[in-house]
Amino acid sequence: MKKISTNTLRRLPRYYALLDEMVKAGEDKTSSGKLAKIMGLNASQIRNDLNCFGGFGQQGYGYNTLMLRDEIGRLLGKERHFGCIVIGAGNLGRALMSHINFKDLGYRLVGAFDSNEAFAGQMVAGMPIRHISGLDDFCRLEKPAVAVLCVPKDAALELGKQLSRLGIKAIWNFTPYDLSLELPNMVVENVHLEDSLMALGYRLQNLD
Amino acid sequence: MKKISTNTLRRLPRYYALLDEMVKAGEDKTSSGKLAKIMGLNASQIRNDLNCFGGFGQQGYGYNTLMLRDEIGRLLGKERHFGCIVIGAGNLGRALMSHINFKDLGYRLVGAFDSNEAFAGQMVAGMPIRHISGLDDFCRLEKPAVAVLCVPKDAALELGKQLSRLGIKAIWNFTPYDLSLELPNMVVENVHLEDSLMALGYRLQNLD
Repeated sequence: MKKISTNTLRRLPRYYALLDEMVKAGEDKTSSGKLAKIMGLNASQIRNDLNCFGGFGQQGYGYNTLMLRDEIGRLLGKERHFGCIVIGAGNLGRALMSHINFKDLGYRLVGAFDSNEAFAGQMVAGMPIRHISGLDDFCRLEKPAVAVLCVPKDAALELGKQLSRLGIKAIWNFTPYDLSLELPNMVVENVHLEDSLMALGYRLQNLD
Repeated sequence: MKKISTNTLRRLPRYYALLDEMVKAGEDKTSSGKLAKIMGLNASQIRNDLNCFGGFGQQGYGYNTLMLRDEIGRLLGKERHFGCIVIGAGNLGRALMSHINFKDLGYRLVGAFDSNEAFAGQMVAGMPIRHISGLDDFCRLEKPAVAVLCVPKDAALELGKQLSRLGIKAIWNFTPYDLSLELPNMVVENVHLEDSLMALGYRLQNLD
């Protein structure tokens, strides 16, 4: 397999969703032209993306939607059921626990933690919130691979280091702190909500 | 002002946050080298970014943190107080209303709407949730510029078109639907949470 560029990686989930819709609608095959039109890209870009991981395109036939969807799903780890914990069960952490379909995306939500003792024992999305003091023991037992980090900025770095020591391999990072510099061996996927809203402000001011 | 590239735009909020910290810590000036080190970029990239909007760098002096912060803040519209409504007050919409500091980011949160009649009148972050049937009248009166869209995928396109007709200029889009193709005149800032988590799965599988 060729190395996948960042831009191609960012498009993989969109290909997956689109192909999944096609499969469910009974469409056996598709073409780079059709995918291009729906995604607002050009067909050669699509072919280039799909060639990166073997593709399944055949001249004059196109792509088998089912095979291509499942191959992309495999690349995205959708059958891996990565163990996943949420750190910080305030408004945002709780909303993610309820809103995100972890199972369909390749994850098992196995625990949720907060430093607020008043939260301990509360149920969110069928899961008890635990006090953060139990994090070490929990991780040694359950060996989760991923942490969803929804804590205040000031707590981010220390928690990131702790998670790294506990064997966590990846952080879905909702703090404004970019942990990737300090934790180079960790996969850090940043969702900087505030930055996104500020960028919107720039674009809104510069409409033309 | 030179046209700002997408990559530079994505870095503006990070510059802002960093300079704001420096100002608050009493640091009057900084340099491209210092900014580069903190951000994990190289100094010439920083200078190139800051030159795009006039910059304030002087050879041998560096940048005045206060002036540069305020200039970037102005570019990001932080003093514009854009009127903003939330559409879809489920778990995620409510969490954003509570979690995001709209005021500090240049927005005024003026309303929240949901199609669920049982939500109408509930208070979230000091604001009543209204039934979606009142959206048209509300927009004619309040003229919000921005909508935060937290509705199911199937409702996204129709609502996007309605918001466009009602004079909304920008959508902070949390639905999986990429509205930018169908609404080319609208600023659409996508936050595709599911895509982000899937991309994390790819990176976690391909650790080396």
